[in-house]
Amino acid sequence: MLFVARMDVVFPESMTDETKADFQVKEKAYSADLQERGIMKGIWRIVGEYSNISMYEVDDLDFLHATFQGFPMFAYMNVKVTPLAKHPNATTDDFFRQL
Amino acid sequence: MLFVARMDVVFPESMTDETKADFQVKEKAYSADLQERGIMKGIWRIVGEYSNISMYEVDDLDFLHATFQGFPMFAYMNVKVTPLAKHPNATTDDFFRQL
Amino acid sequence: MLFVARMDVVFPESMTDETKADFQVKEKAYSADLQERGIMKGIWRIVGEYSNISMYEVDDLDFLHATFQGFPMFAYMNVKVTPLAKHPNATTDDFFRQL
Amino acid sequence: MLFVARMDVVFPESMTDETKADFQVKEKAYSADLQERGIMKGIWRIVGEYSNISMYEVDDLDFLHATFQGFPMFAYMNVKVTPLAKHPNATTDDFFRQL
Amino acid sequence: MLFVARMDVVFPESMTDETKADFQVKEKAYSADLQERGIMKGIWRIVGEYSNISMYEVDDLDFLHATFQGFPMFAYMNVKVTPLAKHPNATTDDFFRQL
Amino acid sequence: MLFVARMDVVFPESMTDETKADFQVKEKAYSADLQERGIMKGIWRIVGEYSNISMYEVDDLDFLHATFQGFPMFAYMNVKVTPLAKHPNATTDDFFRQL
Amino acid sequence: MLFVARMDVVFPESMTDETKADFQVKEKAYSADLQERGIMKGIWRIVGEYSNISMYEVDDLDFLHATFQGFPMFAYMNVKVTPLAKHPNATTDDFFRQL
Amino acid sequence: MLFVARMDVVFPESMTDETKADFQVKEKAYSADLQERGIMKGIWRIVGEYSNISMYEVDDLDFLHATFQGFPMFAYMNVKVTPLAKHPNATTDDFFRQL
Amino acid sequence: MLFVARMDVVFPESMTDETKADFQVKEKAYSADLQERGIMKGIWRIVGEYSNISMYEVDDLDFLHATFQGFPMFAYMNVKVTPLAKHPNATTDDFFRQL
Amino acid sequence: MLFVARMDVVFPESMTDETKADFQVKEKAYSADLQERGIMKGIWRIVGEYSNISMYEVDDLDFLHATFQGFPMFAYMNVKVTPLAKHPNATTDDFFRQL
Repeated sequence: MLFVARMDVVFPESMTDETKADFQVKEKAYSADLQERGIMKGIWRIVGEYSNISMYEVDDLDFLHATFQGFPMFAYMNVKVTPLAKHPNATTDDFFRQL
Repeated sequence: MLFVARMDVVFPESMTDETKADFQVKEKAYSADLQERGIMKGIWRIVGEYSNISMYEVDDLDFLHATFQGFPMFAYMNVKVTPLAKHPNATTDDFFRQL
Repeated sequence: MLFVARMDVVFPESMTDETKADFQVKEKAYSADLQERGIMKGIWRIVGEYSNISMYEVDDLDFLHATFQGFPMFAYMNVKVTPLAKHPNATTDDFFRQL
Repeated sequence: MLFVARMDVVFPESMTDETKADFQVKEKAYSADLQERGIMKGIWRIVGEYSNISMYEVDDLDFLHATFQGFPMFAYMNVKVTPLAKHPNATTDDFFRQL
Repeated sequence: MLFVARMDVVFPESMTDETKADFQVKEKAYSADLQERGIMKGIWRIVGEYSNISMYEVDDLDFLHATFQGFPMFAYMNVKVTPLAKHPNATTDDFFRQL
Repeated sequence: MLFVARMDVVFPESMTDETKADFQVKEKAYSADLQERGIMKGIWRIVGEYSNISMYEVDDLDFLHATFQGFPMFAYMNVKVTPLAKHPNATTDDFFRQL
Repeated sequence: MLFVARMDVVFPESMTDETKADFQVKEKAYSADLQERGIMKGIWRIVGEYSNISMYEVDDLDFLHATFQGFPMFAYMNVKVTPLAKHPNATTDDFFRQL
Repeated sequence: MLFVARMDVVFPESMTDETKADFQVKEKAYSADLQERGIMKGIWRIVGEYSNISMYEVDDLDFLHATFQGFPMFAYMNVKVTPLAKHPNATTDDFFRQL
Repeated sequence: MLFVARMDVVFPESMTDETKADFQVKEKAYSADLQERGIMKGIWRIVGEYSNISMYEVDDLDFLHATFQGFPMFAYMNVKVTPLAKHPNATTDDFFRQL
Repeated sequence: MLFVARMDVVFPESMTDETKADFQVKEKAYSADLQERGIMKGIWRIVGEYSNISMYEVDDLDFLHATFQGFPMFAYMNVKVTPLAKHPNATTDDFFRQL
């Protein structure tokens, strides 16, 4: 099952640049692992914003929530999740490449 | 360049079921053609709504607007377009399959 | 997997009371069937509004969308769907009675 | 009488992880007690958010407010309460299990 | 238990002045009866709007919904209901006069 | 003339519990005085929120603003004021008891 | 006492240009009378919109509501009223000219 | 040319009462000067809020922005500016007194 | 002085394609004239929407409102106007070409 | 391809005036360079706000995002980007001057 998420990151004023950089390194690794395992099907930057649009293929909502909660930056993210179904005009069951 | 759109369809009260069905047939063909040509990279139904999330790969904004305007149901759609860039955590330049 | 939906019904001005009553009869039967089959786990009226809060247990998002689309009044409903996961403070995996 | 609440938790930037963990332990106990006493009929995590949807069966609004105010994290919660009535399409007066 | 409601009336374009006047006569009688029975504790016009703020004392949410649904103009009203509890700074349990 | 207000209290993160308690004592006295003088006709807690709905009978808008500004917690309140007129369906000119 | 209103006019689709013109003639006379009597202290067009900002000096909220309800186009207006008090930085009690 | 502004003041949590009082003295002088020079045509407090509605007569948008930016409290204000034109129902070109 | 407008066009359901086409011809001529006279400095389509962003250089707000009101489709447009001043980082007083 | 952005700047409470001034100097240089290179086609101050409307001509969305991210104040900006296409009523392909 596919879900699309919009994630907006807001760091607290007091966070140092080192801490931010450290978070970004961990976030990159976490995100790469999700892509490799076929859970995160895509992730894109919203132009001009510290936000992403990302898509998730999962079998289970508890797993999906755990996936979001596992993001190193989760405490600084606003996440909005939208469930997606097959569209009648889609010519394929799966638009994504195997990563 | 990649853009994500959310489209919400609102048919006028007076439209007959025949007209709606006719629109849906035309829409399906138009949409299939966009997928085949590699313009529409994906389309999904938002669960519970007469709405879709769809993604477009285009070189040009005039072409992108013309693509939206070409939808048979365009007059009955609210379309919101968001430009997307590569995310630093993406492990690939292209998440989509060749259709 | 559990989803909560808020459904708001807006009938067009031109719909007769007979048609409305007819829709309500069909809706009741459809809804009862969903409850019997364990798909709709609960449905409640929002006090003062022509709206409901309802909960759905499904294995699949395509099935969930089909379930919403099957409501006889679907064309006159605004539906917003929110995916739910187990809460760490829940003392049970399933709060609902077998109907 | 049944009420549905949406609770969003926002911890202040200065709160330590220990304090948060301590709050979560107290919250879990408080929540379990409400479930045992048949006041909280259900609680679910909104996928991707530090938020819950929960349902309350109470006889009295002063008691309901006291129940919310009693949550250890109440000062850090935004709570929105919606009163619910029996839906004409409900096949039962009570959708919830005895916990 | 006390609830405050905001009701906004929107008549359809096609409704004649006679029908509107007829609705208003019925509404006035229904409203007077609710006041006499101690259910509607107060009703006020929002200055400049075809809207009211009104307060209801009821023992039961099903009864409260039935009360709203009984308004002759219910089909043309948007109703938002907010549950109220005793305020710690209130010097009385009941601010309203016996009508 | 009658006005309804919705007041939402937001204390700053750094305020100690002592200061809050001190504010609440002063607020209670101020509020009691307004009720005794027939200015505040009623005050109710919004269930689940640190907010109230309150009603004011005043002859003058400067006096009304001074009344709000006099609340000990005024600096931490968001106040929204709505002017009310007699409703054609009201069976009395004054719904409130003499306190 | 001074109030500022924002009025947005929305005519129904079926209204003829003659009816609109007729309304505008009546509206102009009604508005001129309010200005002459010192009730409407000012009225301005919001640039680009079929809307006005207007200010009213009245002694009484029932009278103010009756004033709004008396506008020939009242049924087609959305009116939002905001009560105003003397500002501490104002150098005069009355900014308006005698008309 | 006339513009109406709504200004909402939000002081940071850390600002002392002395600093606030000092700002208010400077603000009063700045505001009085604008009134004397015929730039600020009126200013009113929104009842219950730390906000004003004010009107400005200027020949030039750069000058208008400089006027706003010159407010001593500008850094703590949210300002929304709306351009106004003569209303067809106005009986005068200028509603304001010479201060 | 420069103003930016966002215009959204909503045609009524009953308008025929001929009437729409006729409006578009008149609109194009009106718009071309405004460009030629140096009043409309630019106009762009918002991708995916029946909306434009346009910019206007005028000396006077009454003239600006008359310019908007003169659009053949004015009755079917929602127009939001924002006044613009010189930005301190602008390297020129005028970004637009002479048309 | 042309994009319009609205940027709102919000500095944290703790930032000193020196740091702000320093940011503004860097921002001015960055902005001037973008104008010189024909990337930023225009920038205007929204009257009364610490915000700008600016327009960008770019070939690529990754480049556009990098352009926004390169602003010295990027971490303190909310940026909303809207893609623009040629309007059928435009009399030119390019409204902007060569800087």
